[in-house]
Amino acid sequence: MTTQEKIAALRTFMNTHQIDAWIVPSADPHQSEYMADHWKIRAWLSGFTGSAGTLVVTPDRAGLWTDSRYFLQAEQELADSGIDLFKLKMPGVPDHIQWLAALLPQGARLGFDGNVVSVAQVQKLRNALQTLRVQFFYQQDLAAELWTERPAIPAEPVFLLDDRFCGESRVSKFSRVRAQLVQEKATAHLISPLDEIAWLLNLRGRDIDYNPVTISYAYISEQEVRLFIDPHKVNGDVRKVLEADGVILVPYHDLFSFLEQLPPESTVLLDPHKTTQIVSDIVASRATVRGGENLVFSMKAIKNPVELEGLRQAHVRDGVAMVKWLYWLDQQIGNRDLTEVTVVAPLEAFRRQGKYFQGLSFHTIAGYQANGAICHYAAKPETALSIKPEGLLLVDSGAQYADGTTDITRTLALAPPTEQQRRDFTLVLKGHIALATAKFPRGTSGAQLDTIARLVLWQQGLNYGHGTGHGIGHFLSVHEGPQSLRPESMVALEPGMVCSNEPGLYREGEYGIRIENLIITIPAEKTAFGTFYQFETVTLCPMDLDLVEPALFTNEERDWLNAYHRTVFEKLVSGLNTEEAAWLRHETREI
Amino acid sequence: MTTQEKIAALRTFMNTHQIDAWIVPSADPHQSEYMADHWKIRAWLSGFTGSAGTLVVTPDRAGLWTDSRYFLQAEQELADSGIDLFKLKMPGVPDHIQWLAALLPQGARLGFDGNVVSVAQVQKLRNALQTLRVQFFYQQDLAAELWTERPAIPAEPVFLLDDRFCGESRVSKFSRVRAQLVQEKATAHLISPLDEIAWLLNLRGRDIDYNPVTISYAYISEQEVRLFIDPHKVNGDVRKVLEADGVILVPYHDLFSFLEQLPPESTVLLDPHKTTQIVSDIVASRATVRGGENLVFSMKAIKNPVELEGLRQAHVRDGVAMVKWLYWLDQQIGNRDLTEVTVVAPLEAFRRQGKYFQGLSFHTIAGYQANGAICHYAAKPETALSIKPEGLLLVDSGAQYADGTTDITRTLALAPPTEQQRRDFTLVLKGHIALATAKFPRGTSGAQLDTIARLVLWQQGLNYGHGTGHGIGHFLSVHEGPQSLRPESMVALEPGMVCSNEPGLYREGEYGIRIENLIITIPAEKTAFGTFYQFETVTLCPMDLDLVEPALFTNEERDWLNAYHRTVFEKLVSGLNTEEAAWLRHETREI
Repeated sequence: MTTQEKIAALRTFMNTHQIDAWIVPSADPHQSEYMADHWKIRAWLSGFTGSAGTLVVTPDRAGLWTDSRYFLQAEQELADSGIDLFKLKMPGVPDHIQWLAALLPQGARLGFDGNVVSVAQVQKLRNALQTLRVQFFYQQDLAAELWTERPAIPAEPVFLLDDRFCGESRVSKFSRVRAQLVQEKATAHLISPLDEIAWLLNLRGRDIDYNPVTISYAYISEQEVRLFIDPHKVNGDVRKVLEADGVILVPYHDLFSFLEQLPPESTVLLDPHKTTQIVSDIVASRATVRGGENLVFSMKAIKNPVELEGLRQAHVRDGVAMVKWLYWLDQQIGNRDLTEVTVVAPLEAFRRQGKYFQGLSFHTIAGYQANGAICHYAAKPETALSIKPEGLLLVDSGAQYADGTTDITRTLALAPPTEQQRRDFTLVLKGHIALATAKFPRGTSGAQLDTIARLVLWQQGLNYGHGTGHGIGHFLSVHEGPQSLRPESMVALEPGMVCSNEPGLYREGEYGIRIENLIITIPAEKTAFGTFYQFETVTLCPMDLDLVEPALFTNEERDWLNAYHRTVFEKLVSGLNTEEAAWLRHETREI
Repeated sequence: MTTQEKIAALRTFMNTHQIDAWIVPSADPHQSEYMADHWKIRAWLSGFTGSAGTLVVTPDRAGLWTDSRYFLQAEQELADSGIDLFKLKMPGVPDHIQWLAALLPQGARLGFDGNVVSVAQVQKLRNALQTLRVQFFYQQDLAAELWTERPAIPAEPVFLLDDRFCGESRVSKFSRVRAQLVQEKATAHLISPLDEIAWLLNLRGRDIDYNPVTISYAYISEQEVRLFIDPHKVNGDVRKVLEADGVILVPYHDLFSFLEQLPPESTVLLDPHKTTQIVSDIVASRATVRGGENLVFSMKAIKNPVELEGLRQAHVRDGVAMVKWLYWLDQQIGNRDLTEVTVVAPLEAFRRQGKYFQGLSFHTIAGYQANGAICHYAAKPETALSIKPEGLLLVDSGAQYADGTTDITRTLALAPPTEQQRRDFTLVLKGHIALATAKFPRGTSGAQLDTIARLVLWQQGLNYGHGTGHGIGHFLSVHEGPQSLRPESMVALEPGMVCSNEPGLYREGEYGIRIENLIITIPAEKTAFGTFYQFETVTLCPMDLDLVEPALFTNEERDWLNAYHRTVFEKLVSGLNTEEAAWLRHETREI
């Protein structure tokens, strides 16, 4: 079927059900950042394969909304589809809700799949379309009914994560959640996000690329813990351990029938941002819904001492792999043909040699020259640039280890850099160091901290268009909340939280610079003025000294870089061969 | 009547009306920060005279909630009153709503004066007490009925502010508001805050100490502008000018009857934070209420070029007065008896000599030694400390001029300071300079900017417990929004906004340091990375160089201070006599 045929078929269905507009978001029932193919209905229907986008179809129009990362790709993929591209956040371009508000008649019937759209999103639609008295039709997914060759829900086996990696038994986590349930005056809690379930049950899976999670729901009450999961994914040994800890295994598709039989006196805590409208409706039809943030969300963000020590150890292995690869690259540059795709293949191989390696934590970004300035650039074999002994190469990569998740960006000069490149790199590094060495009082938010890394760039009329840092999971998602270092984040940093520290600078058409280490929030001191925190940097890998202009440094900044490089050398040298060690000694030389 | 008798009388009334709890906030119908005595019911009823506090009375209990500024005063004033003091934000202390939620029975009747409590506050009560199904009784103010000797509403004459001070005619402001009303799909707008009305009508008054406003309401629709004001306050000349500009004058107390006759097809924009529940109820009973921020609020914050030039000129006069006073102080210290009260009396006299002087902009704070560490300290003649040639004196003061409002804090060493005092002062000054010299992209919020002034203190385990800056009116309130430089402010700074830049450091029992100048947001540059803004400092007064430790400065910081002092000298010298000028030359010497 062509895209035009698919849209025509959807319109026939819409006509039968008297629907005036149908919305197809990028979403799954678990509000995942990365989805299984089974839920990529928007991509199947529209032909646009980017990770973020919303399709809206009316009887005579169809529009797709996506952000600047995907403008070019969407233009190409939507050509001749009859679907109009709407470029989000461009001047004068309405978002899809504004567009609907302008276009829908009074009393219109609006359809979408209530099994993937969250309560909060439906509320947003409801508020925006209030005056039109729009009716919602979301019990049935018309778009998916057309998809005859829809991929199945993944069913990879699950595995347990040992307490020596987790640092806390699932039974202990259950009782912490239950204690909070009492405080929240709720009797039960339904958890949809896959990483929260994995954390709560010390359970991992392979259903989603890069994210070691398994498709499931978890339900926890005073009396019981239920895991809704495809039984084929759970082998006998895993089942025994879970059941011994009081977990009742229930088939994934039995969630709705279970919720329909909830005791009417139940009060179920549901996070409106992470629970679908249909699940919420079912609970509400039977019991009381208490809206609130998922309890596991904030618990998971505070890593325990075992998780933190694992993270440090994982970074030694990850640093060894990075240095082996940097040394390899140093030897190869100019001596053989390399592209943005082939240059990073050995990096995965080096990481694979590390103990507890479980896979990459995201698709490696290697952006050469001007491609480094495209923030979410993903090279493809057919279009990847050839890498020559000139210019800058930005590499953002990471791995999953059983004891921790890594995420590191380094920017490399493949030839003696220009003065502007050295200056830009050093300014970004100054921002990175300012955050790495910051001390701040309890209660300081991500918005306040974000400034620290930007200030030195702002003073020169420079800036970067992304947040300074994101939270990161423990052998889980490479992006997790609630904390982040962004201008809009009001969440306070707490000891045990792990973030990235990744300021950057992107000169369109020229090159991109980003320097990323992971940092742990740790206590600093208590004074008459309060409790102060600081950061511990855990990522171990040299910065390219060819790109550093020491004249721009303060003494403190130079001392920090020298001390960091000493630590990098000391912690990594035992994992390297003689040539690699000699190379690293030079790369971490004092300046 | 004693406080106990007043509370007993209130309970009798409550019993008659079957009320389970009565709330008396610190509020007036205009949600003013500073109130006329007429609305100080909480102070009259409880005996606690501090500016912020909430009294709650039940049949058998009475509590007063206030913040740390007033703990000592409240303890003294509430002694033997039978009213319990609740210290806000102290560990384990419930706020008054939490206390009510724990204490009230199901279906309780809760009373307060709906003529002073805002829609947003009622909504907050409603949300918090939802599960108790509390009924509200707010049409009648029982507490005020007891107050037989209640002061009248002030009725000082109003005066017009000339366009050469305002920079924009009221007619032009009306048409800007009307254009925005169309955009908001509202037909009319009722404005309650007194400073917004003063700005809109280029009208000033003297009803409230320090705030040149007049008690009134303004109503603006497509067709008309109505000013609800006591007619005795408006003389014939003022009336003529206002009426010529299309303003219909209506007696203040006729607001309700006017609203009761609104055309039913009206859609009236009301700000829930700035409109009382009773006013909103009346509008809602007759027409449609559109909730939204008052339109004038943000308009007023962006000062026009005439206002900004007036602000600069007012600061020359204010700086001359400050320097004359500093010189006088320098001559007097050790030579005559001075207290925290008498030391600042000449400052007002010097200011009064300045052209366009209209009064002070707030009660001058002079905190000597340990009193300087009490952030909202107000010296009283009977308890004011004697000032000797030793220690630090913090003076926070400001004035109203027809062309601008000033607010300045200086910290003075009355004898050679200790090393710690010099270090503390220099760190605060470094924070002040960091903000004064910051460049930042369009869209940067107050929360992000607040960090810039704190960072140098944080690094030493130091901090201050107040925001870094507040917005300030143009010959209006010394505190105004929407912008502020505070950890929780998400409002972006825009060119034309004026803020204070006032980091500090307070060593309990020892001394307080604060350095405050006013700053205007102005354009800096446009680069490939966006539009950047910066600040222009307008306050002109030397920093005490005896408190500066130059070794802690960077070259840039020293250059800034020297350049600032050169400007101070150049702009003020012509207003000084020979001795004062010589003194200022020394005080602004290069370091």
